[in-house]
Amino acid sequence: MSQRPEIRQILEAYRPIWALDHATALFSWDRETYMPADSAKSRGSAQGLLASMRQQRVVALTEIVSKAEKLEGLNDFDRGVVRNLKRELKYFTKVPPELVEELQRVRTEATVVWREAKKKSDFSLFQPHLEKIVELKRKEAEKLGYEGHPYNALMDLYEEGLTTLDVDRIFPLLVSNLKRILHHIMSSKSFPTNHVLENVPYDEESMRRVNQEVLRLLDMPEKTFRMDVSSHPFSINLSMDDARITTTYEGRNFKETIFSVIHECGHALYTLQIDPSMDYTPLAGAPSAGLDESQSRFLENFLGRSSPFTNLLYPVLKKNLPFISEYSEDDIYRYFNLVRPSPTREADEVTYNFHIFLRYELEKKLLSGEVEVSDLPTIWDDMMDEYVGVRPKNMAEGVLQDVHWSWGHFGYFPTYTLGNVIAATVFNRMKRALDFQDVIRRGDMGPIKMWLKENIHKWGATYSPKELQTKALGDVYNPEYLVRYLEEKYQT
Amino acid sequence: MSQRPEIRQILEAYRPIWALDHATALFSWDRETYMPADSAKSRGSAQGLLASMRQQRVVALTEIVSKAEKLEGLNDFDRGVVRNLKRELKYFTKVPPELVEELQRVRTEATVVWREAKKKSDFSLFQPHLEKIVELKRKEAEKLGYEGHPYNALMDLYEEGLTTLDVDRIFPLLVSNLKRILHHIMSSKSFPTNHVLENVPYDEESMRRVNQEVLRLLDMPEKTFRMDVSSHPFSINLSMDDARITTTYEGRNFKETIFSVIHECGHALYTLQIDPSMDYTPLAGAPSAGLDESQSRFLENFLGRSSPFTNLLYPVLKKNLPFISEYSEDDIYRYFNLVRPSPTREADEVTYNFHIFLRYELEKKLLSGEVEVSDLPTIWDDMMDEYVGVRPKNMAEGVLQDVHWSWGHFGYFPTYTLGNVIAATVFNRMKRALDFQDVIRRGDMGPIKMWLKENIHKWGATYSPKELQTKALGDVYNPEYLVRYLEEKYQT
Repeated sequence: MSQRPEIRQILEAYRPIWALDHATALFSWDRETYMPADSAKSRGSAQGLLASMRQQRVVALTEIVSKAEKLEGLNDFDRGVVRNLKRELKYFTKVPPELVEELQRVRTEATVVWREAKKKSDFSLFQPHLEKIVELKRKEAEKLGYEGHPYNALMDLYEEGLTTLDVDRIFPLLVSNLKRILHHIMSSKSFPTNHVLENVPYDEESMRRVNQEVLRLLDMPEKTFRMDVSSHPFSINLSMDDARITTTYEGRNFKETIFSVIHECGHALYTLQIDPSMDYTPLAGAPSAGLDESQSRFLENFLGRSSPFTNLLYPVLKKNLPFISEYSEDDIYRYFNLVRPSPTREADEVTYNFHIFLRYELEKKLLSGEVEVSDLPTIWDDMMDEYVGVRPKNMAEGVLQDVHWSWGHFGYFPTYTLGNVIAATVFNRMKRALDFQDVIRRGDMGPIKMWLKENIHKWGATYSPKELQTKALGDVYNPEYLVRYLEEKYQT
Repeated sequence: MSQRPEIRQILEAYRPIWALDHATALFSWDRETYMPADSAKSRGSAQGLLASMRQQRVVALTEIVSKAEKLEGLNDFDRGVVRNLKRELKYFTKVPPELVEELQRVRTEATVVWREAKKKSDFSLFQPHLEKIVELKRKEAEKLGYEGHPYNALMDLYEEGLTTLDVDRIFPLLVSNLKRILHHIMSSKSFPTNHVLENVPYDEESMRRVNQEVLRLLDMPEKTFRMDVSSHPFSINLSMDDARITTTYEGRNFKETIFSVIHECGHALYTLQIDPSMDYTPLAGAPSAGLDESQSRFLENFLGRSSPFTNLLYPVLKKNLPFISEYSEDDIYRYFNLVRPSPTREADEVTYNFHIFLRYELEKKLLSGEVEVSDLPTIWDDMMDEYVGVRPKNMAEGVLQDVHWSWGHFGYFPTYTLGNVIAATVFNRMKRALDFQDVIRRGDMGPIKMWLKENIHKWGATYSPKELQTKALGDVYNPEYLVRYLEEKYQT
């Protein structure tokens, strides 16, 4: 907590903003879990009204934040408060409300059209909407201002300070090495590309029990955390003492629901382990989408898909899913870790990053005008062929596969790969401090959670993502650890 | 919708207030249903912050509401908006914030102590807290101002314009007649005082299916309504398109959960049938606690405990609860309608109002100083003996049985009997317009719901409770219909 009166004044004024965020988070959670189907209209109105109350209150902080920024001798906490609020204020100050409203309107419409276009596998329906969105995103980037590439302005909204220089340093090294690793796996057939367990149906009640056991294995708290069901898995933090996740039960391919649970628990854990002094402040969250994602990827891949965790999970699976008795622990491990070049963004650890690279390249070039929206379907398929080695059989599984562009999310995709890159760096650092395999083998998540808390979580958004990585990991967006981890895992 | 610019300006400014109410309602619903146990602290903070934002926004309307009040030629809608806001403003203007805060603090403490006192059946623990509450409620009444009895100021908070003159006209007639009816039932043994079904355990899953069928029989909408489980049943309206109820499964005495569902559906239906033009306005609710309660009591008692509804329910019970096969429809009807003089406020239609009368008398006399808190246990037991004909065997089932006083709810109890009185008036009026028994027999709730909508629900809070009764029922708080209904039902 700050001793400076200016910062205290800011934090006092921030409490209602926090309360509005708390309410908005509960709105979202409820909408995806329990809200009656036809209550969307009034929920939408309430959400919009809360958003504008929030914006008014943030904008009212302009003067005091500017004043606080000029103070000398601020500590890290104070500087973090000022930095985060300045970022929020920048958006509200620089992007005119008419542009924000137009974006909102175009997105709402585009999302509906995208759904239809995907169903019909017809890009031409979506094209004019996407063209409008790209035009508005260019305007947004101009208004926000940037150095270098206009895409920097958009990436910065999700990952403070991230530039194309950073990302163009990450992908070439990653892509060339992943190509080599993928080639090795494919030719050595050391890991399968398909598994019979993908098609085995499961009983939902039994699977719910398995997921409860997964929570127990991860030692998730019972009184500040909960899990529900929704049509897409997500995590949301209402407060530092109220983190919620959801999962989905598709009825077959049981690893999907398990890994969504482990993934979302990574996000929840971040929230739950932030230092209590940051409660009710702008610091009560991750500093960026990439860092937030690094924690979910760490839990999902580095911990969840490891062989000791598979072994820990095996008796739980065997007890609850009768068909498991036909498979060994090693079968399950291979099912969890199959590598499959696929035209759609799926969750294997090797090919995933090709999909992100492709999207990054296209977004960047759409922004700069090097690529036209009308060229997307062809370029998409060609790049997919070049990097992943498969051609989508139609536009639904090609350029129309993601919802993100219809939402106007440009600059967000790269943070998925940043998440993987940072997670691998965490893995590398953590192994110096503790015997990772052995700790999992003993089923004791305490030391892992403590390491994450002490090095990353407890700081909340005190530091920028680059500062936090330097401080906690000694390395900033360095893809070498991810390459090394995958080399070891897939024995290349 | 209003054509007057002043009213439109008020309604525009009211929309964020409505949104804050929507959020607060969701907070309450979530707290009682799904919120993790240890998230109460931050939820409490968020709720307090939203409440003070709300109050600021209501108080900011003072001037424009005063201006609108002086306009000539306002229509009913406009006058309703002004009337409701003036009531809210009156409280904020007249009761000093220090008193509100002190009440809040004392109540929070008193609720904890009351729980302990009830557990130990020791009134002396609770006595000093109740003395403090009575003192503060006297102050509150003085600040609010009143004509006649100070209790009028407090009853008005729940039931606009209700005075002791009104209530003192209702109870004598009701109490003397109910005594006679009770005496007849007891001596003729026409209805049982106990029933073996009260002790038969049920399976919760089966009971949930029964309650789903109850919702279907009541024709509750599927897309704007939902039912969950909580430790005490309640209903809450988030919006006019989002009404939610809860029930409780105690594991035996299955009528409890069924009648809680029917009761809460009565409240939900009110919300769902208000005219859409009142959405987002101060009119989007019942005009008083008594009118709101009249709808839940109407559904619970007049419809739910009727013999045609019992017959409608019988096959559902038989299908889902194996033990029902030993009982006839008439057995179930008698189980639903047993009359038992009991020291605790239970749900039979005859004795219930004695319990309310007792509480009304005591609250009134506590306020005026005719009764001291220290005298309560003795007076309570004596009155219980006089009116209900039983003596509580200890303070837990005597003076300590209700939580309401620890919450500082003084003036609320009478609205329970007003609910019964108005419900009987509704029943009388409705029977002139439709063949009630026959409509239920056919399982068609449409005409009943339509009658309630057209005569009561659609008006929301446009009219004061007395105005609405005059307009819709032609009679204001007239207990004769309740007496007549009970005479017929219990064949006296």
